[in-house]
Amino acid sequence: MRAPSASLVVVGNEVLSAKVVDENGPWLAARLHERGIELRSISTVRDRVDEIVEALQRERPRVGWLITSGGVGPTHDDVTIEAVAAALGRKVRRDQRLAEVYRTIHRRLRGEEMPEAGLRMADVPEGTELAGDPSFPTLVCDGVVMLPGVPKFLRYQFDRFVGNMGGEPFHLACVYLSVVEDRIAAALTAVAAAHPGVEFGSYPRFDDADHLVKLTVESRRLGEVVVAVDALLAALPASAIVRVARPGEAPGPA
Amino acid sequence: MRAPSASLVVVGNEVLSAKVVDENGPWLAARLHERGIELRSISTVRDRVDEIVEALQRERPRVGWLITSGGVGPTHDDVTIEAVAAALGRKVRRDQRLAEVYRTIHRRLRGEEMPEAGLRMADVPEGTELAGDPSFPTLVCDGVVMLPGVPKFLRYQFDRFVGNMGGEPFHLACVYLSVVEDRIAAALTAVAAAHPGVEFGSYPRFDDADHLVKLTVESRRLGEVVVAVDALLAALPASAIVRVARPGEAPGPA
Repeated sequence: MRAPSASLVVVGNEVLSAKVVDENGPWLAARLHERGIELRSISTVRDRVDEIVEALQRERPRVGWLITSGGVGPTHDDVTIEAVAAALGRKVRRDQRLAEVYRTIHRRLRGEEMPEAGLRMADVPEGTELAGDPSFPTLVCDGVVMLPGVPKFLRYQFDRFVGNMGGEPFHLACVYLSVVEDRIAAALTAVAAAHPGVEFGSYPRFDDADHLVKLTVESRRLGEVVVAVDALLAALPASAIVRVARPGEAPGPA
Repeated sequence: MRAPSASLVVVGNEVLSAKVVDENGPWLAARLHERGIELRSISTVRDRVDEIVEALQRERPRVGWLITSGGVGPTHDDVTIEAVAAALGRKVRRDQRLAEVYRTIHRRLRGEEMPEAGLRMADVPEGTELAGDPSFPTLVCDGVVMLPGVPKFLRYQFDRFVGNMGGEPFHLACVYLSVVEDRIAAALTAVAAAHPGVEFGSYPRFDDADHLVKLTVESRRLGEVVVAVDALLAALPASAIVRVARPGEAPGPA
């Protein structure tokens, strides 16, 4: 069983040079969080084998799952597969089942045989599992989930694999305040120190919402959240509290 | 003179746990690219001193500028300043000029004296320069630009400092194609190999745009882009080309 934790490596010159706004990081962050899989980091790197390998090797000992997005197409700048293989110490081999998948897709969509160059997409790290939907499989090797960069394809392949990744949901409570952060900083620091198993967050707003700060209180253990929220409410001046959303209640606007 | 290159460290539990979608990475990527400052990587890490320090120390030898976003407020989870100081081998000291800036802002906005806890925001790495607008300064120390996480504040402080960061603009050409990527992969690979000073990108589309693939050709040297585009057009079948946007021409839709 791999730990329910992940790091994401976004392979994307186009993100770094602002040709594309990355949609995959925020989407995967939300999906992983819903599932109770902790996302430890997002590394957005260039389409270079050495930089992808470095990010993979750095993050690998720290998490159960590595997810890559992008760099799995047929062109010269698609080097993710080569980098994953290098990071795992595996060879890249043509997978004939995968080649047949792409040939079938190509025939169906384009009404013709796939050009040989396109079959480069069937070259994967040796031992890669074809998971999820066999007609558009999710590529997984040694805990590395290699997703395509095109958002709709990434989502499809991820959703068909995430059930295998483990995870327990987080329990979340929110406390909305009518005072600025510096007014409650000391109280929050003290309560956070007394509840080390709980994650506290403080999100100031600078718009016309009904609150100035949202505090979040989160843990995989429901009881810890309940106790920590009570401690927080006791430590804050009653007049500062706009409302409280306890675990399971709708958190309300933003 | 520092090199016109940068790495961004996004400090954000809230991004990793999907409580907030990061707007700062895409915005900074676009602004840096416009200015011809190469963005080498974006590292999104948790609000932990050790993880921020690791990212800063890893990226620092590689780029002229490090940019951090977030983690500079007054609460317990704001640890970016401490991490920057540790990465640079400097002490954290209260900056009295900065304390006066925050006192003035607080008095103006809230009509009262700033609570002592709020002045934690005036604790910065020793030697930090207060650049940009003196009434809301950009914090810069040894090539590390420490920006706030709130997008409107980050943008304000960045825009008042970016003029000091150097950079020459990139020249960009785009070639729009009516064929799928695998049809042109071999030609693109050959042209890219023959023009090592030029960046080539290939962006497939899966919607109802007038093209299936956009190729981008980019360099800080205009002549190299012109030559590379000509080579690319010679290598591609004429029937595959929908249109070409040469450097200085509007690139057209997406």
